[in-house]
Amino acid sequence: MPNYQYETVKVTLHDKVAHVQLNRPTKLNAFNPGLIHDVRAVFQDLGQDKDIRAVVVSGSGRMFTAGLDLTDTAVNVENEGDLARLAYDKRAHIKEFQAAFTAIEECEKPVIAAIHNGCFGAGVDMVTACDMRYCTKDAFFCVKEVDVGLAADVGTLQRLPKVIGSQSLVRELCYTGRNLYADEALQHGLVNRVYDTSEQLIAESLKVAALIASKSPVAVVGTKHNLLYSRDHSVSEALAYTVTWSSAMLNTEDIPKSFAAFVNKKPATFSKL
Amino acid sequence: MPNYQYETVKVTLHDKVAHVQLNRPTKLNAFNPGLIHDVRAVFQDLGQDKDIRAVVVSGSGRMFTAGLDLTDTAVNVENEGDLARLAYDKRAHIKEFQAAFTAIEECEKPVIAAIHNGCFGAGVDMVTACDMRYCTKDAFFCVKEVDVGLAADVGTLQRLPKVIGSQSLVRELCYTGRNLYADEALQHGLVNRVYDTSEQLIAESLKVAALIASKSPVAVVGTKHNLLYSRDHSVSEALAYTVTWSSAMLNTEDIPKSFAAFVNKKPATFSKL
Amino acid sequence: MPNYQYETVKVTLHDKVAHVQLNRPTKLNAFNPGLIHDVRAVFQDLGQDKDIRAVVVSGSGRMFTAGLDLTDTAVNVENEGDLARLAYDKRAHIKEFQAAFTAIEECEKPVIAAIHNGCFGAGVDMVTACDMRYCTKDAFFCVKEVDVGLAADVGTLQRLPKVIGSQSLVRELCYTGRNLYADEALQHGLVNRVYDTSEQLIAESLKVAALIASKSPVAVVGTKHNLLYSRDHSVSEALAYTVTWSSAMLNTEDIPKSFAAFVNKKPATFSKL
Amino acid sequence: MPNYQYETVKVTLHDKVAHVQLNRPTKLNAFNPGLIHDVRAVFQDLGQDKDIRAVVVSGSGRMFTAGLDLTDTAVNVENEGDLARLAYDKRAHIKEFQAAFTAIEECEKPVIAAIHNGCFGAGVDMVTACDMRYCTKDAFFCVKEVDVGLAADVGTLQRLPKVIGSQSLVRELCYTGRNLYADEALQHGLVNRVYDTSEQLIAESLKVAALIASKSPVAVVGTKHNLLYSRDHSVSEALAYTVTWSSAMLNTEDIPKSFAAFVNKKPATFSKL
Amino acid sequence: MPNYQYETVKVTLHDKVAHVQLNRPTKLNAFNPGLIHDVRAVFQDLGQDKDIRAVVVSGSGRMFTAGLDLTDTAVNVENEGDLARLAYDKRAHIKEFQAAFTAIEECEKPVIAAIHNGCFGAGVDMVTACDMRYCTKDAFFCVKEVDVGLAADVGTLQRLPKVIGSQSLVRELCYTGRNLYADEALQHGLVNRVYDTSEQLIAESLKVAALIASKSPVAVVGTKHNLLYSRDHSVSEALAYTVTWSSAMLNTEDIPKSFAAFVNKKPATFSKL
Amino acid sequence: MPNYQYETVKVTLHDKVAHVQLNRPTKLNAFNPGLIHDVRAVFQDLGQDKDIRAVVVSGSGRMFTAGLDLTDTAVNVENEGDLARLAYDKRAHIKEFQAAFTAIEECEKPVIAAIHNGCFGAGVDMVTACDMRYCTKDAFFCVKEVDVGLAADVGTLQRLPKVIGSQSLVRELCYTGRNLYADEALQHGLVNRVYDTSEQLIAESLKVAALIASKSPVAVVGTKHNLLYSRDHSVSEALAYTVTWSSAMLNTEDIPKSFAAFVNKKPATFSKL
Repeated sequence: MPNYQYETVKVTLHDKVAHVQLNRPTKLNAFNPGLIHDVRAVFQDLGQDKDIRAVVVSGSGRMFTAGLDLTDTAVNVENEGDLARLAYDKRAHIKEFQAAFTAIEECEKPVIAAIHNGCFGAGVDMVTACDMRYCTKDAFFCVKEVDVGLAADVGTLQRLPKVIGSQSLVRELCYTGRNLYADEALQHGLVNRVYDTSEQLIAESLKVAALIASKSPVAVVGTKHNLLYSRDHSVSEALAYTVTWSSAMLNTEDIPKSFAAFVNKKPATFSKL
Repeated sequence: MPNYQYETVKVTLHDKVAHVQLNRPTKLNAFNPGLIHDVRAVFQDLGQDKDIRAVVVSGSGRMFTAGLDLTDTAVNVENEGDLARLAYDKRAHIKEFQAAFTAIEECEKPVIAAIHNGCFGAGVDMVTACDMRYCTKDAFFCVKEVDVGLAADVGTLQRLPKVIGSQSLVRELCYTGRNLYADEALQHGLVNRVYDTSEQLIAESLKVAALIASKSPVAVVGTKHNLLYSRDHSVSEALAYTVTWSSAMLNTEDIPKSFAAFVNKKPATFSKL
Repeated sequence: MPNYQYETVKVTLHDKVAHVQLNRPTKLNAFNPGLIHDVRAVFQDLGQDKDIRAVVVSGSGRMFTAGLDLTDTAVNVENEGDLARLAYDKRAHIKEFQAAFTAIEECEKPVIAAIHNGCFGAGVDMVTACDMRYCTKDAFFCVKEVDVGLAADVGTLQRLPKVIGSQSLVRELCYTGRNLYADEALQHGLVNRVYDTSEQLIAESLKVAALIASKSPVAVVGTKHNLLYSRDHSVSEALAYTVTWSSAMLNTEDIPKSFAAFVNKKPATFSKL
Repeated sequence: MPNYQYETVKVTLHDKVAHVQLNRPTKLNAFNPGLIHDVRAVFQDLGQDKDIRAVVVSGSGRMFTAGLDLTDTAVNVENEGDLARLAYDKRAHIKEFQAAFTAIEECEKPVIAAIHNGCFGAGVDMVTACDMRYCTKDAFFCVKEVDVGLAADVGTLQRLPKVIGSQSLVRELCYTGRNLYADEALQHGLVNRVYDTSEQLIAESLKVAALIASKSPVAVVGTKHNLLYSRDHSVSEALAYTVTWSSAMLNTEDIPKSFAAFVNKKPATFSKL
Repeated sequence: MPNYQYETVKVTLHDKVAHVQLNRPTKLNAFNPGLIHDVRAVFQDLGQDKDIRAVVVSGSGRMFTAGLDLTDTAVNVENEGDLARLAYDKRAHIKEFQAAFTAIEECEKPVIAAIHNGCFGAGVDMVTACDMRYCTKDAFFCVKEVDVGLAADVGTLQRLPKVIGSQSLVRELCYTGRNLYADEALQHGLVNRVYDTSEQLIAESLKVAALIASKSPVAVVGTKHNLLYSRDHSVSEALAYTVTWSSAMLNTEDIPKSFAAFVNKKPATFSKL
Repeated sequence: MPNYQYETVKVTLHDKVAHVQLNRPTKLNAFNPGLIHDVRAVFQDLGQDKDIRAVVVSGSGRMFTAGLDLTDTAVNVENEGDLARLAYDKRAHIKEFQAAFTAIEECEKPVIAAIHNGCFGAGVDMVTACDMRYCTKDAFFCVKEVDVGLAADVGTLQRLPKVIGSQSLVRELCYTGRNLYADEALQHGLVNRVYDTSEQLIAESLKVAALIASKSPVAVVGTKHNLLYSRDHSVSEALAYTVTWSSAMLNTEDIPKSFAAFVNKKPATFSKL
């Protein structure tokens, strides 16, 4: 079982629920190599921890995250040496960064992003890899990459268009780098709900996580797995895939347990998955 | 021509429009094997009936549907015998169930779901396979499967994410099983319009269906066909496909007829398709 | 460098921004072969003009566009001769028409559609190929094709469902041909903002275009390129693709220039791309 | 259990193996509506028959098949009436014909085509939907469609290029309609083996079928299922799919039974699937 | 109708067949910008010429082609200036070069490559875009790009693996740059037939082209179109596509004409397509 | 730099070439968890070693590999406990095993499999993930999984059909588990060449590896990368992708170096990649 000790991320364990905090408050939780590493590590660990069934991720201190840490991350723009080799070397770095947020999807348990105040750049890449987003009324989202001279290449351009419906809004955000405030984020469905304070935000997010964690893990894990599959496939492909998935997963004690719980109006206790 | 007699589904024929009612009111229109069979049958029949150009589907009695009929459907969780064989046997059953709702898509005519009161579980799988959704103000939608110990494998996880824009909402609904009420369904575009009463709902749905049915069937069938194709393909694939589709379908008398109707301000009469 | 002289389209050049006007006001900017040709030409020209970094497209005169010009375009429904040959001949014409709007996507620079009053038929095909849409409060959108006896085959059925989230709305618009007015277009995210007058609309659209044009063209072009790629691919495909894209594009002076601009609070000057 | 009585197809049951014969010898087994119907029916029946684990299909009489029966099948080339409606009507007929051969793939059990003498037109469509092909030395294959004025639309153009490696050969066969004789078919891997006589062909094909039928049906069915999936997907997609498939199917008694058989050098007896 | 005058390509017109010759014999038909341009132009012209139904392409002089013309083509390896802009500039050049060979696929009429002696680098890119390949016994193929420091990016790495079956051979050719001689090319199906002399090669290639040109153009064009579609899609996608294609194309007089020709044993005369 | 010490795999370093040997000769190089782990590790290490440009993999002792080690690998067929959980647990194990062979593809350097004598089961999964295959005349390949009661789920069913052209052969091998001997493997292009002895096999394989290693690594790595991409995408997708790849990679000193080497007839020295 993981010990959940990381340098830049803090984990609090509740019953079946983990609360992950980006924990570089003096740096506004900006992403340096350490944080990139730890985000990947913590979600890989959570993915394998059979005691955990849902996760909340938030930022400590003043804001969710200021995005890429420009002071600590060497944004080395080389223009000497062979250009093909310079380009080739970039590949591994970008993939490494992407892997941190893809680990959230691969963790197989619902991950709720609880965002307060600023969520800049890599923060948007991160929260669009989460399952749901809740925020405070002072929250705002900013696809900052365009102002730094690059296309957002660790998830935002790939996931944001599939997370909300209005592509007109997506393009405006990505081309202008303007802030998207909580109310507009709510209206367009980027977040599900807006809370007055950070305390409420965390408390309510943990409550939703606990609710999810109380349900059959066979059902919940299968739901995340199949929703991710559906996002990236046609309806007929997704229907065919879920036949194969469910052919194994429907043979589970969780179904009669769920029925009994319903009939007896008592919560069911499900085995670990 | 079909006779439209089914055990669990009632069909009323209007001019060019069929009204399909889930008709197990004492069972809250819950899906038992009979209803699963009849839904598939009725939409296959409607698909082949050249007199019908649009369909409304609603539920009789207290609610749209309570979802899977747990009393009649054997939800047999076997755990004896060879596991591979148990799994293999499930395949046919899941495919059969999926086929009932896929028949709505394959029917090639617009299908309007008119939902009142509860729409649980398999009901959500069903209405997301319809073209449009209207509802009453007391309607609510519930992805119940997670509470029964399984991933929604007959359409909801495959179609709901492609029917509305907010994936944050989709995941919340699918992980928590909470109700989505009419106003939120309207705001997020799951339904197009909310009516006060069931009577209004049905009357207005039939009116929209009649409007659609008054138009060129070559245009309407081609529109549904190509919208479904576009959902599951890239834009360039879909553009290429529609070239092939339209190369045949543009050679139709419906075009001059439509023009004449426009100029003369008289409705056109289109041949059957 | 292009001279930007066309018969049916008018181009006004601003600093790094081009304003394209559909310019058949006496014909309500209806699409005849000339306009179809010119739209393709102007966006191909703009795509290759290194002095232009963003584009606004609007309609001159009373409305954005009345759609297909039925008086000038021969909508020849032939029904004599060999049917296979009739069908084969249609192919080239449809592809030609599609190419006009696809040129907007291929132009590689953000294109803002500024729509006032009516936007009928081919107009919807056109604006859904643009990156963003702004409109006046008297604007309305109408998928007119269904009333002309055909499926919208030059973009609407292919792009509209991917531009807004509510598929229930998409289907209603495409099956009924009803008008979608500005407020509903705003609510559903088809447009980003609604302005009182055409003058405001154009002024504000040009302002947004200028803002975008002030940013690194490496960042902006890369953003459009990758957003289009993401629309048509799975998340994992899109992430892999952007690794390859960015491996070349991150080696740019625009990044340190952007940093310096941020630190010095002075706008950066970026070289042409 | 099916009774295997069909008008135009003859079925002989061996131990776990079915031998299907196209049985219109006086018509050279040409495909009329009856044979199209029966081919689909027999493979659907075989697919559901748990007593059958492998199938051989051959032709009775002088040749495997002369292709489409031009005397019995109405090849009605209409050129009156609305062209769009004429085109729409064709759709159902082509799909019906395709479904006959797709039933071979969907039957989930290996199907060996045993071809003697001529295999024309629809015969090529058919045998490319089979798993393996054996033939006599007097066998030849002819993609006849090009000589009849149409593109081979019931499988040949779709499957033949994926069945053999040389696309240069595929194109030559499809454009010229020339015969491909047994030796060249062998060299290019269209067939696995060539026999002197029809008797040998059938005997050896049945022997291979019996060998396959002696193995674990969980292994064999899973192999066909995954090979078909792999044909139509990328390697990474196919690897991910087989994880889901095998997660259920590896929990089978057939594995220890297979080991025991190997150790004891006695054939295993596997339960039906 | 095109006049077929090009600087670097020579066209000879036969009855319904065009013979295209790469015509820079003193430069061993090496690809300079002029030849790249002309190849694209000639195949676009041929594609639109209703009098032409099949094409043979060969090289004039000593060999088919020496590949890229290193003396005339500026292979400018820049390493000054902004790397992102250097990379971006390359895009248009590579696409332009690719377009020359893609024009062969898009020409919609079968194209036979008749190769004698050396076929280096870009020559392999070219002939793999053709439908069929015939060669002389002194012919050899060489994927030269690896020896020039680059990955073959104008077609070879994209099409060669889909043209022959043995990927072990494909990789060896592409990694080592070794020659593939006529006999091995024949054995592995890269070419269909090997002739002793160039004269025989051209004569026989023209004969095959004439044979193809004698058949229904509806059938031949449809066959190429659908074979290309099938190459790039799953079987089920390709079957569905051909339904739509054939629904228009089966309504053709070429079918009864073909029958009559067969019955009367007289060649049919088909109208232009 | 890796130290290349593994328990079950032996690595010999040559100039720019690594020779990897499966090194459990007393167990016939059967795959136990240790070997699965080490295969993945060694190819990940080789992938990151800039001194290595090509790899040969062979087996030590009597044969290439006997396949899965049934004595050491717990092939635990559980049939107690919750079936959904049993199935879920299998997932991680299968993915782990797949990852060992996928590491060969992801290593980005050409990998030559040099096979002598038996290559059973997992051995076929392994060698189909290699770039090329050479073998001795006593070599044979056996898709053994069908005889063990399972579908080959770690690569054979996914890669073998894409490695050779004859699907008739692929199916026969996978359904019957019969041996494929060297001569047939050569004829069908599974291997490129057959050698008399193991010594020759290794010597010649290393020679080819050295030849590849002498070439521009920018060219070779780009070739492998793009060939893998092409295998899994349509031609148009692959052409578009290589534009992006080459836009960075064509700006390399390896191109002028390659030219100079050609002109001067002296081997070029390329920098590490």
